[in-house]
Amino acid sequence: MALTVEQLAKHIGGTLVGGDPNTLILKPASIDTAEAGDVTFLSNMKYAPLLNTTKAGVCIVSDTNDLTANCALIKVKNPDLGFTLAVSALVPLPPRPDSGIHSTAVIHPSAKLGEGVTVGALSVIEANAVIGKNTVIHSNVTVGNGAVVGESCLLYPGVVLYHQIRLGNRVIIHSNAVIGSDGFGYVFDGRDHIKIPQVGTVEIGDDVEIGAGTTIDRARFGKTQIGGGTKIDNVVQVGHNVTIGSKSIIVAQVGIAGSTHIGSGVVVAGQAGISGHIKIGDGAKVVGRAGVSKNIPAGESWGGEPAKPYADFIDELRNIKSIGGLRKRIKELEAIVDELRKSK
Amino acid sequence: MALTVEQLAKHIGGTLVGGDPNTLILKPASIDTAEAGDVTFLSNMKYAPLLNTTKAGVCIVSDTNDLTANCALIKVKNPDLGFTLAVSALVPLPPRPDSGIHSTAVIHPSAKLGEGVTVGALSVIEANAVIGKNTVIHSNVTVGNGAVVGESCLLYPGVVLYHQIRLGNRVIIHSNAVIGSDGFGYVFDGRDHIKIPQVGTVEIGDDVEIGAGTTIDRARFGKTQIGGGTKIDNVVQVGHNVTIGSKSIIVAQVGIAGSTHIGSGVVVAGQAGISGHIKIGDGAKVVGRAGVSKNIPAGESWGGEPAKPYADFIDELRNIKSIGGLRKRIKELEAIVDELRKSK
Amino acid sequence: MALTVEQLAKHIGGTLVGGDPNTLILKPASIDTAEAGDVTFLSNMKYAPLLNTTKAGVCIVSDTNDLTANCALIKVKNPDLGFTLAVSALVPLPPRPDSGIHSTAVIHPSAKLGEGVTVGALSVIEANAVIGKNTVIHSNVTVGNGAVVGESCLLYPGVVLYHQIRLGNRVIIHSNAVIGSDGFGYVFDGRDHIKIPQVGTVEIGDDVEIGAGTTIDRARFGKTQIGGGTKIDNVVQVGHNVTIGSKSIIVAQVGIAGSTHIGSGVVVAGQAGISGHIKIGDGAKVVGRAGVSKNIPAGESWGGEPAKPYADFIDELRNIKSIGGLRKRIKELEAIVDELRKSK
Repeated sequence: MALTVEQLAKHIGGTLVGGDPNTLILKPASIDTAEAGDVTFLSNMKYAPLLNTTKAGVCIVSDTNDLTANCALIKVKNPDLGFTLAVSALVPLPPRPDSGIHSTAVIHPSAKLGEGVTVGALSVIEANAVIGKNTVIHSNVTVGNGAVVGESCLLYPGVVLYHQIRLGNRVIIHSNAVIGSDGFGYVFDGRDHIKIPQVGTVEIGDDVEIGAGTTIDRARFGKTQIGGGTKIDNVVQVGHNVTIGSKSIIVAQVGIAGSTHIGSGVVVAGQAGISGHIKIGDGAKVVGRAGVSKNIPAGESWGGEPAKPYADFIDELRNIKSIGGLRKRIKELEAIVDELRKSK
Repeated sequence: MALTVEQLAKHIGGTLVGGDPNTLILKPASIDTAEAGDVTFLSNMKYAPLLNTTKAGVCIVSDTNDLTANCALIKVKNPDLGFTLAVSALVPLPPRPDSGIHSTAVIHPSAKLGEGVTVGALSVIEANAVIGKNTVIHSNVTVGNGAVVGESCLLYPGVVLYHQIRLGNRVIIHSNAVIGSDGFGYVFDGRDHIKIPQVGTVEIGDDVEIGAGTTIDRARFGKTQIGGGTKIDNVVQVGHNVTIGSKSIIVAQVGIAGSTHIGSGVVVAGQAGISGHIKIGDGAKVVGRAGVSKNIPAGESWGGEPAKPYADFIDELRNIKSIGGLRKRIKELEAIVDELRKSK
Repeated sequence: MALTVEQLAKHIGGTLVGGDPNTLILKPASIDTAEAGDVTFLSNMKYAPLLNTTKAGVCIVSDTNDLTANCALIKVKNPDLGFTLAVSALVPLPPRPDSGIHSTAVIHPSAKLGEGVTVGALSVIEANAVIGKNTVIHSNVTVGNGAVVGESCLLYPGVVLYHQIRLGNRVIIHSNAVIGSDGFGYVFDGRDHIKIPQVGTVEIGDDVEIGAGTTIDRARFGKTQIGGGTKIDNVVQVGHNVTIGSKSIIVAQVGIAGSTHIGSGVVVAGQAGISGHIKIGDGAKVVGRAGVSKNIPAGESWGGEPAKPYADFIDELRNIKSIGGLRKRIKELEAIVDELRKSK
């Protein structure tokens, strides 16, 4: 796909400044590696000097800055968004299996597939499963008994959906993620750990994306829930009966223990751990690698181990750094006090 | 499945108190969401006030408390266990593939399958594998060359068992777990990392459950061992030549480095990391997110980074919190001492 | 396979000392469990006393120590390497699928497979994929559209290679690892998280080994790169646009955030986390469970949370331990100063 600079500016709703409007743009690139025929963008102002040396055909920049450059500029409100729209216009969607049901896929006769559904080679759709229209399922996927997948979803190779779990529309799940495995629960009867049946399910809202290798357990009863528009990175563990609101961001390798409730618009950064049975309020932010064991009020940022409000976390780091200095001051005091005592 | 309250009380070995013994119970629910026709339970006394408002048909409670409620009660010694038995009686087992060997499964002629074995669609049983009777294998599973699976096991979609690993009876393995991948070992020859052959295996005892996405490496030689009745959660990493005793609990995202020995009845909470070549004694407890780098004596609880005995860990948290206060006291002392010096 | 002690010594380039050169050696074992007919080795001198009691047929030891033993010795420069060569000579390679293309594999007509390629049962090779000669692909693997796999690679069951990713020669990938899933990136447009297309790829060098369940994301544009000879353990997460140099070692459960550059010969120990957009210099070492948020200069060892140079990290641990003692000294000072004040 190729667009002129002028077409591109129009497509992303920006204003073209400088350069030849007919320059042909073929692909996106980063500002330091871009060549003629590339579109790039400037979002972080620390890279602004690169505008003078970039070889890009056009650069998407913020309309609030009065920038000049070595190339044409497209000014928009949000350069990240503008560039994302540009990339989507220039680069084809990732390749998909041939449309239709592959001859080697195993579809149970009781499963219901909507119009335009694609099922790749060697995938299994079990009894009573329902797949919404235009959903694309790659190869080696298993959709469990009675599972319901919405419309226009995209399941990459190796995804497993356990029985009776439900996906909304436009859900993307990356390879080898597992949705609906049993929650981890046992009762000790004095001799053995007796398995607690996990008879609930998982419900995933519209426009959720789930990363490779992520695991989301089904509920003990009721449901584990991921709200619409929430994005989950790779190898995240979500325990049973957890609920996450809408439009939250959960970064890679985070673990969320059972029955915890996470609000909407929350950001949990990488490798953080969140205890069970607590509440993280709407819009809260959890610093990477934090260990959260208490409720976090809405809108607050917490970090550290155990996690505390961000200012306290920064204080704690500073306090720890100060210990050596405190020891020195105590030693000096001891010497002076010793002197004072002797001279008395 | 439906049972009367009286039948349910009998089934779980409890004493029925109050209510109509003929009330029909259809499903389990939590105490706050239960409706007529539901069985619920009370284990944590902080929820006792909900007994007055619950709409459940019957609630399972401890026989040591003198409780009254808005519904019938079944009194038992261990309400968690009683409820678990009730759920098992009311809710059907999770759906399984149609019994028998699916026509698309690929079973090597030299593999030996016991009576009543189920193999789902598109699963592979390699040469010389042995599957014990009544074991159920879902779709897209690979059982490696010469692997031995016991009786009445349950392997969910996408499980991979490498060659020659051994499972006991009644083992449950969740989707995309990998048992028997190579241990991580190389020798540097001055130029390259030379792979150390991992010629051992993995042996998993009876009644073990292994979570989704968990990886257990085969031994360098000899075997990696998981004792009977041990339960392992999702995305746990078990290194080569690790041994875990019986009836231990390993929570999600824990990592156990090579050649470490973990005893029986141990609990390792989520995201903890355990160094290689150490020993965790029987009945020890490891706090979530602890970083264990030393042996833990039997029966002790350790936490922190690096982990230490629980009391020391709590002291350490308190000490860190106290630094700001210590700094203030040092400052005050400095002022006083300065005064004393001047006034001398 | 069996070799005499003399043949084994010759094979690994060592000098035989003591024992009967015709003793037949059948298999490797650890020094404490070895029996007659076993070869073992001594690398860590703390186990030297076991030389007097081992029942091994022969033990491989360093030629710099003047050791005597209960069995024949083979003296070599590097006993770990000598033993590794001995194991490789004695133990057959792990079993592989029958050579050739299994009848149930699904190979797109446009895919190009080199001479001697093996594709196991129920694996999928998508359109335009290229597989180099003598590569072995186990069962239930997906090789995506246009992916290029080098020669003599080994892909275990359940591996997923997304479209257009590239592997060098002799790459080993363990089960359920995912290479080329989308990088985790969104732009918030004021209402929704808009997905940033991830149109780059992943390039993996020669002789790389990748553990079970590990996930490596494709680049936003350009490529995520893993250099030749680098070894990555299980369940490691590598973000988009990360580059890792050659011959580095990344231990289990490490997470590396997007656009970070890791040099060559680096060791990152287990469960460490590395922030995005930073640089870890050649030959650096990261302590297990460290949280790295700044550049690490070449050759340095860093540990802690947040990570700092090793000496500072050890100081910090010592400082934290000292807080209780400091509090005591402050209390004593306060008492003395109080006394001094009163007595003035």
